[in-house]
Amino acid sequence: MKVLNMAERKRGWDPSQLRKYDIQLEEIPRLSCNDPRVEELISENKPVVITDTKLVSSALKWDIDYLEKNIGSGDFSVFLSRNHKFKYYDDKKLQDAGTEFTPSTKRVDMKFPEFAKKLRQWMRGDERLYLQQPLNNTVGPAIVEDFLKFNWEWVNGRQKKHSWGHLTSNLLLVAMEGNVTPCHYDEQQNFFAEVKGFKRCILFPPEQFDCLYPHPVFHPHDRQSQVDFEHPDYVRFPKFREVRGQEAVVGPGDVLYIPIYWWHHIESLMRGGYTVSINFWYKAGPMGQILYPLKGHQKVAIMRNVEKMLVEALQDTSQVGPLLRALVLGRYT
Amino acid sequence: MKVLNMAERKRGWDPSQLRKYDIQLEEIPRLSCNDPRVEELISENKPVVITDTKLVSSALKWDIDYLEKNIGSGDFSVFLSRNHKFKYYDDKKLQDAGTEFTPSTKRVDMKFPEFAKKLRQWMRGDERLYLQQPLNNTVGPAIVEDFLKFNWEWVNGRQKKHSWGHLTSNLLLVAMEGNVTPCHYDEQQNFFAEVKGFKRCILFPPEQFDCLYPHPVFHPHDRQSQVDFEHPDYVRFPKFREVRGQEAVVGPGDVLYIPIYWWHHIESLMRGGYTVSINFWYKAGPMGQILYPLKGHQKVAIMRNVEKMLVEALQDTSQVGPLLRALVLGRYT
Ligand SMILES: [Zn+2]
Ligand SMILES: [Zn+2]
Repeated sequence: MKVLNMAERKRGWDPSQLRKYDIQLEEIPRLSCNDPRVEELISENKPVVITDTKLVSSALKWDIDYLEKNIGSGDFSVFLSRNHKFKYYDDKKLQDAGTEFTPSTKRVDMKFPEFAKKLRQWMRGDERLYLQQPLNNTVGPAIVEDFLKFNWEWVNGRQKKHSWGHLTSNLLLVAMEGNVTPCHYDEQQNFFAEVKGFKRCILFPPEQFDCLYPHPVFHPHDRQSQVDFEHPDYVRFPKFREVRGQEAVVGPGDVLYIPIYWWHHIESLMRGGYTVSINFWYKAGPMGQILYPLKGHQKVAIMRNVEKMLVEALQDTSQVGPLLRALVLGRYT
Repeated sequence: MKVLNMAERKRGWDPSQLRKYDIQLEEIPRLSCNDPRVEELISENKPVVITDTKLVSSALKWDIDYLEKNIGSGDFSVFLSRNHKFKYYDDKKLQDAGTEFTPSTKRVDMKFPEFAKKLRQWMRGDERLYLQQPLNNTVGPAIVEDFLKFNWEWVNGRQKKHSWGHLTSNLLLVAMEGNVTPCHYDEQQNFFAEVKGFKRCILFPPEQFDCLYPHPVFHPHDRQSQVDFEHPDYVRFPKFREVRGQEAVVGPGDVLYIPIYWWHHIESLMRGGYTVSINFWYKAGPMGQILYPLKGHQKVAIMRNVEKMLVEALQDTSQVGPLLRALVLGRYT
C-alpha cells in the first residue's frame, strides 16, 4: 500500500490515481480570484485554476444523496460505456458519417433516483455511467435555492469584463471514478467548477490542432481528437509526439477556466469516488478588430469553415476527402 | 537517316519529331466540321481536332516574311528561354511567391522585324524565342484584311450554339521548332488554330488534377503542373504514374478544341521549322443549373476558391500551406 506524504494527505489525492500518458505536461497556474494575473490570463485566453471564487459554494453539498432527494423528477441524460472512455458524438451527424460509424457510448434518459441506484449497485464489468444534463426548470426548490446562491456577481463580472456573450447553459456532470472524457475542444468559453471529488484536466492550446488530428467536421466525433491517448498510433498521427500540454487536478471549490477552442481531456481520478462538476458555458464575445497574423483559434474557425463549405458545395461528405487530398498532396506537402 | 513511309510523307511529319514521355496516350478524335459528332464533343467539353473549318484560311500565308512585312510596328511580347521549355508565370504573383522563385523565361518587347532577324540568325546555344502576342489594332491593313476573312460565321456559330461567353482575345503564337509549352490549364474555352508547321498537343481532363499537381493558386506558376514531363519526380508526385492523356498533332488548317480547365502540353515538332498558331479564347458560358455529383472542372473551381479564400483570410501566402497541412494530414489521409 502506498504511503501518502503530508501534502498528498492534505490535498486529498495522490499521483498514482492519475492515468499514465506519454505526453509532456506542465502545470496550469493556480491563483486566487483576488490575484490580478487571473484577469490577465482570461483576457489572453489562457487556462488558469481559480481558487476562492465561492462560485459554487452553495453546491458543495451536492452529493448523490442530496441530489437524489432534491433535484426533482426530470429526465437526465446518462451515457453508458463498456470502458472508461466517454467520447462524445453528435446524433445529428450520424447519417452523414457513412456506414462504418458505431458509437462507443449509449445515451439513455433516466430519473435521478434510477441513476443513483445504478451507481450504488455498480460492480466491475458493468457498463460505466456518466450523467451529463443541463440544469433546467424541472429541478426542485432546494436546488433552485442553491443555484441562485452561486456567486453570480463574480462570474457575471468576468463575463462582462472580458466581453463574453451570454451564458448558454450550466451542465451538471456526475461521473464514476476513473471515467474519462477524451480530448476535444468546445466552441464556447467555459468556467468548469468542481463540486465533489477530483478531476484531472489536461489542456492543449488551439495552435496544437495539427498534433491532435480532430475528426472531420461532418463526422459525429467532430471536435474530438482521433488520437487514443493510451495507445497513440504514431504512424497515422506522427505529430502527436510533439504535443505539449498543461494539466491541473481540480477539487471541490476550484474553478478551471477552459478557454474557447482549447483542447481538454478530463478524467475523474481512479479510486477517488464519484465526481460532481458544473460547467458555465458562454458564447464567444464579438470579434472586434482583426489583427494579423491570426491567432490559433481563428485558424481553427477558418478550417471548420472550409470543411463546411466543401460539404455544402459538393453535397456529399464522401467527396470532401478526395477533393482535399487533391488540393494538398504534392502541392502543399 | 529515317526513311519516311507514304503516310508520313503526305502528312508532313514523322514520329521521331515527337519528344518522348513515359505517359499513356490515346488519340484525340479528328473530325470534319460537318460531322455532327463535333458539336456533341464540344457540348460535352471534350477535345476534338476539327478539319475543314476554313477558320484561318486567310492566315495560312502568314509566314515570317509576310508577317514582318505586314504586321505593323507595334510591340510584341517575346519570351526567351535557356532551354526548350517556356513555362508561363504571372508577373502579378511574383511578390507573393517568396524569395525562392526565379522565372526560367524572360519576357521582352520587340518589334516584329527584330524578332524575325533573331529567328533567322539563331544558332544552337542561343536563347530560344517564343512570340506570344494578342492581335490588336496596331497591325497593318493586310493583316486586318486577313483577320476579317477568318471564318467568323463558323466560330461565332459554335460560340452561340454552346452558349460560350465573349471572345476575349486572339493570341498570335510564333514558336521555334522544338519549343515546349509545359502542361497547364486555362480558365477559358479555346479554339486553337494551326497556321504554319506542326504542333503536338497532349491533353488531360480536369479530373486528373490530382495526377498533375499544379502550383498553388498564388504562385506565379498558378495553373501550371509542377511535374517535369521529361524527368517526373515520382516520389513527390506519385499519382503522375496514373495520368492518362489524349494527343494530336495539328497542322495548317486544323483547329483543336481545348476545353476550359483541360490540361494541355504543346510542343512545336523537333526539326519541323518554326510554327505559327492563333488562339481563339472565350469566356465560359453561364453556369445554368448545378447538377450533382459535380464535374471535374467544377471541383477545380472550388479548389481554386478555397486557396484564394485562405490567402484572403490569412493575409499571408506563407501560412496557407501550414493551415492546409493541419486541415488534411492525418484527418483526410
Ligand atoms: Zn468540453
Ligand atoms: Zn494554354
